[in-house]
Order: sequence, then C-alpha cells, then structure tokens
Amino acid sequence: MAHINLPEELPGIRGPMAFRPETAKSLNELAEALLRSENSLTRGERELIATYVSSLNDCFFCQNAHGGLAQHYLQCDMAFIDNVKKDYQSTSISEKLKSLLAIAASVQKGGKNVTPSQIEKAKSLGASDREIHDTVLIAAAFCMFNRYVDGLATWAPQDRQIYIDRGPRRAEEGYINFDLYK
Amino acid sequence: MAHINLPEELPGIRGPMAFRPETAKSLNELAEALLRSENSLTRGERELIATYVSSLNDCFFCQNAHGGLAQHYLQCDMAFIDNVKKDYQSTSISEKLKSLLAIAASVQKGGKNVTPSQIEKAKSLGASDREIHDTVLIAAAFCMFNRYVDGLATWAPQDRQIYIDRGPRRAEEGYINFDLYK
Repeated sequence: MAHINLPEELPGIRGPMAFRPETAKSLNELAEALLRSENSLTRGERELIATYVSSLNDCFFCQNAHGGLAQHYLQCDMAFIDNVKKDYQSTSISEKLKSLLAIAASVQKGGKNVTPSQIEKAKSLGASDREIHDTVLIAAAFCMFNRYVDGLATWAPQDRQIYIDRGPRRAEEGYINFDLYK
Repeated sequence: MAHINLPEELPGIRGPMAFRPETAKSLNELAEALLRSENSLTRGERELIATYVSSLNDCFFCQNAHGGLAQHYLQCDMAFIDNVKKDYQSTSISEKLKSLLAIAASVQKGGKNVTPSQIEKAKSLGASDREIHDTVLIAAAFCMFNRYVDGLATWAPQDRQIYIDRGPRRAEEGYINFDLYK
C-alpha cells in the first residue's frame, strides 16, 4: 500500500500524478521536452538512457515502463534492453551512446561524479553540447522520477509483458494530454 | 569551466537554463508549483526542505540560493539555516517539520529508504497526505536540480553573502518569468 492515499487502480507515477495534477503538469511537460521533442538523439536512445538510470536506481516501474518504450522505438526485444542495463559496453549500441550512458551513470551517483575525461570522450565520439546537456538532465530527471515513485511506495504490475504490450500505445500518446486512467 | 559551452556570466542553474529554454520552462514551472503555490506548508518551510536536500547532495549553488530564500521567508539568519543542515533535531523548527525533513533525507538516499514508521510519525504530528507528497517531490526534485547543476560543472559565487542579499528579490520575482541575466 502506498504511503499516502492514492487512487488504488493507478500504478507507478500515475497515482501521485492523479493525486496532485498541479505538479503532474510540469513533470509531464518536462518528460515530453526531454524524451520526445525534436532532438539529434532518437527517442529510443533517450528512453534507453532513462531506462538505464531507472535500473541503477532500482525503480521497477520506471525501468520497465521506459524499457517498454525503448524496445518499441529501437525495435529490439526486452533481452537487449536487459543487456544494456547489465553491461552496455558488451552490446551493439553506438560508441557515442555508450559514452553518454557513462555520463548518465555518473550523474546517478551525484553530479560531481561526471569527469572531464568522460565529457572529452563523448565529444570525441561526436556528442554535441546539447546531447551532453540532455543526457545529464535526463539522468537527473530520472533520479527525481524514480524517487517520486518509490518514495511514496506506489505499486507496479510485476508481469513485465504488460509494459512491453503497452509500449506502442504509450509511444503514440506521449507524455501530455494522455488519460492517466487508461 | 562548465563541461559544455554555457553563457559564462550566469551562475548555477541559470547557465543551463539559458542554454536550453525548452526544458527550463517546465523546470521553473515545477519549482513554482512546489515551492511557491498555495500550500499548507509555508514557502519558508518548503525552501528549507529544498535547502536541506541540496546540502545532503553537497550542491553549493542550490543550498545557498535556496538557503537565502529560506532565511528571508523564515526571518532568521544564515546560522540558523546552517544549524538545520547540520542537525535539525536540535533546532527550534516544529516537530512536524522535523518529521518531514527525516522523510526528505530518506528520499535523498533513494525512494525505498522512506519507512512506514517515518510516515506514521509525520502523520501523528499532523502532516497531511499532501504535505507528505510535496515533501517527497521537493526532495526528489532537488535530487534532480542538484545533479543538473553539478553534473554540468557550473560555477557558483563563493561569497555566501551574495545569496543572502539576493533572497528578497528572488522571493519577489518567483520562478516564472524572471530574467535569467539579472
């Protein structure tokens, strides 16, 4: 049971968002700007960064909800997403994306952990200032979302297939103006 | 020097906000909704939670910028704010606020660290569900803001008096529609 009285039927972040629409609005607009708006990083790459950070924060709901979106956009299976979470260096993602995931992992530990050499490496692999900025902010934002979801002890469906099945629909609806109850 | 090319004259979060106005908009709207909008927690109490979490995350800019606001709203001096950061139990803040700071400290470590007994204690001291919700989200949001500021290696004025002097003006201007360059 959640720590406060949330709508029981809503999993994960949806409960607190229904409880407090005033803050949900800016949270969803932030997600839309970071994860879906025009960007040289694809939506799949951005959802993968979000998934990876959520896995480092051990947030079951977020890593599966965003993992479901990442595997939909990247047209891969969940085993691939799981491999990225476990050991991204061994996967076939681009070297640039690997360098951004390294930055994201440092942000997850705390902002000061990002090193000049991590930044140099990302730049040498073609990452732009804006891509580095967005990686840092996506990682930082999921340190918020994950703490919001788990700090209120929300529940989450344990069957991972549910998140995979919902991926295409969530990709279509986006983060703004979707119905929390559907 | 910051990790990416930010406007040099802007300290702390202002540099990345000027660099990327699309995300700044929702970040500022979130701060406005959480820290200034109508609430049974005073603005001073909410800025104090933000300051405390920023201090736990060792973010110099945020703990001083929001500390400057907290001491302005609470009409205390910075020594009082520093005592709250060091050992809030020994200060004269309310028992309810102490119980909310305990929840905020757990959120800072990670959402799963919030315990049912912390929540029960806060409720027994009169904290409402919404106050607990807002405490969790303020703490989570500052785990984002702090990582954003430090993850990009922004600079911050080291003279703490500057933040104290700016408190009243920042309280007046709020988090929306202010001029990043002033």
